[in-house]
Amino acid sequence: MSAADDLLLRPGHAIAAAVKSGAVSARAVAEAALERIARHDGALGGFTDVTAARARAEAEAVDRAVETGADLPLAGVPYSVKNLYDVEGLVTRAGSKINRDAPPARADATLIARMKAAGAVLVGGVNMGEYAYDFTGENVHDGASRNPHDPGRMSGGSSGGSGTSVAAGMAALSLGSDTNGSIRVPASFCGLFGLKPTFGRLSRAGTFPFVASLDHLGPLARSARDLALAFDALQGPDVADPALIDRPPLATVPTLDEGAAGLRIAVAGGYFRRQGEPEAFAAVDHVAAALGATREVELPEAHRARAAAYVITTAESAALHLDRLKRRAADFDPDTRDRFLSGAMVPAAWYLVAQRFRSVFRAEMRRLFAEVDVILAPATPFSALPSGTRTVRLDGADLPARPNIGLFTQPISFVGLPVVAVPVWLPGARLPIGVQVIAPPWREDIALRVAHALEGMGAVAAPVAAIGGGSEE
Amino acid sequence: MSAADDLLLRPGHAIAAAVKSGAVSARAVAEAALERIARHDGALGGFTDVTAARARAEAEAVDRAVETGADLPLAGVPYSVKNLYDVEGLVTRAGSKINRDAPPARADATLIARMKAAGAVLVGGVNMGEYAYDFTGENVHDGASRNPHDPGRMSGGSSGGSGTSVAAGMAALSLGSDTNGSIRVPASFCGLFGLKPTFGRLSRAGTFPFVASLDHLGPLARSARDLALAFDALQGPDVADPALIDRPPLATVPTLDEGAAGLRIAVAGGYFRRQGEPEAFAAVDHVAAALGATREVELPEAHRARAAAYVITTAESAALHLDRLKRRAADFDPDTRDRFLSGAMVPAAWYLVAQRFRSVFRAEMRRLFAEVDVILAPATPFSALPSGTRTVRLDGADLPARPNIGLFTQPISFVGLPVVAVPVWLPGARLPIGVQVIAPPWREDIALRVAHALEGMGAVAAPVAAIGGGSEE
Repeated sequence: MSAADDLLLRPGHAIAAAVKSGAVSARAVAEAALERIARHDGALGGFTDVTAARARAEAEAVDRAVETGADLPLAGVPYSVKNLYDVEGLVTRAGSKINRDAPPARADATLIARMKAAGAVLVGGVNMGEYAYDFTGENVHDGASRNPHDPGRMSGGSSGGSGTSVAAGMAALSLGSDTNGSIRVPASFCGLFGLKPTFGRLSRAGTFPFVASLDHLGPLARSARDLALAFDALQGPDVADPALIDRPPLATVPTLDEGAAGLRIAVAGGYFRRQGEPEAFAAVDHVAAALGATREVELPEAHRARAAAYVITTAESAALHLDRLKRRAADFDPDTRDRFLSGAMVPAAWYLVAQRFRSVFRAEMRRLFAEVDVILAPATPFSALPSGTRTVRLDGADLPARPNIGLFTQPISFVGLPVVAVPVWLPGARLPIGVQVIAPPWREDIALRVAHALEGMGAVAAPVAAIGGGSEE
Repeated sequence: MSAADDLLLRPGHAIAAAVKSGAVSARAVAEAALERIARHDGALGGFTDVTAARARAEAEAVDRAVETGADLPLAGVPYSVKNLYDVEGLVTRAGSKINRDAPPARADATLIARMKAAGAVLVGGVNMGEYAYDFTGENVHDGASRNPHDPGRMSGGSSGGSGTSVAAGMAALSLGSDTNGSIRVPASFCGLFGLKPTFGRLSRAGTFPFVASLDHLGPLARSARDLALAFDALQGPDVADPALIDRPPLATVPTLDEGAAGLRIAVAGGYFRRQGEPEAFAAVDHVAAALGATREVELPEAHRARAAAYVITTAESAALHLDRLKRRAADFDPDTRDRFLSGAMVPAAWYLVAQRFRSVFRAEMRRLFAEVDVILAPATPFSALPSGTRTVRLDGADLPARPNIGLFTQPISFVGLPVVAVPVWLPGARLPIGVQVIAPPWREDIALRVAHALEGMGAVAAPVAAIGGGSEE
């Protein structure tokens, strides 16, 4: 195994350090990543487009920049993007068949341009649930993006290919999107770190929307430091996104090593201790114990927050797709189509009540965050489900699997709180499961510090999956 | 007739000047106004509450302040408020039967506190269409607020009592609200000046809402200067209204006399030249001729703007009243109830498409205002209709009267543009009719200047109606 191959199993910051030190070229890392994708992705279904020529060109540009002394925080780090991001020259699929008829994007999405400016190297567009209305990572047009830790299981969605590509070491970072949990769920199922920043923090310009009032973009990675490096590179004003909230950028890398001591950390009780498999709560307890957190707090009306998030999701996404539903109903995934169709019949009065409840719940969360700095909650009610699972049993009730995967993520994104999902491997467990580290609005730094501290004490970790017979771990 | 009685027939600024000069006391003006209300309002139905004790106390306080040299811009000016404003000690009816069960307001609405600080004297709460969902001024619980120029005709609504009270000289000013035309319509029917400021300009704290994303508050008066005096007094930040848009206050009184010369003034064509009686277009032509305006501009897709305003109105107001509709359906005006009920069934997808079209239309209007400073359009398609009219014939089609009264006002408030409605008396006409003077966002000063210039040249005027046998004109 070459030095570059070996580096692919390490986090992005280690790759960037090696490239910046001249120990390895970005070009060699890119070749190794492309080779790894070619070897493994057929079985994993992570990628829908591999941007080999672009990766080589970007890597060579990074090598030249490094030679002239440029300090690129993500120098040579291979990354993938969910295929709802515009990549110049590629059709923006958004997981659909219909959008494939659109012309190729003429420019990169803002966040891709920022990754490039930071020295990262794009290796491809990755699989996702159709139009992001998904928690499974299964796509009827492109096949399932499989879980590298067990290819018979879901990667989680909708940023499924992001999970697959990073957990399999085909990329060190991936840009995903999270409306109700679509970054945190694949992070949990694939055993990764995932950052869903504060709503309005990162530009959405050049990405295909799902639910304008709930959509967030963010990175997945195999270390908290990688999330922080990417997050710091991705922030900043953007006239192309009128919905961006104008806030001073927050440098999170410099505070990463401050540790979790002194933070008031609590575990979410009530709603967040029900309707889950034992591993979900054991993972939270494991993280709480590592942090010495003993307090429990109640997020009042979390069930209502989830219901309201549902109503807003289905109504706004139906409005977005109304025209396509009329003209090309047969070209949707039948399951997605039916969700959109039912959304098209939601009364505006319900939608408006749901939006109104948002300010109520936001105020409640604000009150809670006057007393604590961090709240811990499960990321998913269980670890990765077997592919194709349609039903789960939670607290004695048989429930549809897909929507309930997001049981614990929905109430949090509903009010736009920043979250880092951290990967826990319980003793003896064959699969990872995630825990949400939830911070107050605009305080991504706190969630990243806690995630980094947990990683430092070995309480959470994101190893590359043992694929191809486990010879690579 | 006493000096105070006589003053009631003059605009507010004349009353304030007389009070400030000591020629008359505010208390005498208040008594004259209360006496005039007692004499005439029984036949006119303008008031739902007369605040005699408060008026006397406020007037006496003004007299004391004037004695000590205070410079109150609205010293002793009697005014009324639409009964959706909180008045300390009064129940905020919002034109409904249901809200009468609520306890009396514990504090004044922000705008009432500001009128008081400017020296104005509150004489009472006035009649309005139920929950402001109205253009007629007819209220099933409180009776019709009648048109002082012809009590057999509508005052226009929903700020009907505002129109009645000012046109009858029972108040010099009135505070109303305008969601789709509810200030501009009674201004047109009752022959008054009415200001609907830019959306987000004036605090709505302490008022009962109708459609949060379209509601505006503003004054009606018998002179443009009175509007400017009130507007300057009403502006300013208010922490109690989170929806207020933070803009520096605009002093409009100082620029009032600058005239209309130099302004690029155009007449709205297309949509705004169809579906009206001849008097509506003759009034616009009359104003355009007075201003020397010959250019015509097209507001593209104005019909769609109106349709979108409808969808938003019905959906948001239904959401607001959902609980009352469930619990107390029988206590609504049956017509209003059915409008709310149908609104409760509007799909969220329509609502969201309508909201999305708003940005499109706003951008179109912005483009238009790069080329012109003022746009003229009819305020109503006809002058005041006979009370109880259910059907109107417009361009050969029989249409329901009520909704079509707002044909020309809805597309303008849809994107929150500031408008002054000016009152035109065409040669030989028995009734007035209004013209909308529409300015770019945040430029109320321009619309007020134009209205004031028109008043100065005698092209528009708002005489007190000849009530009680015409002996008072």
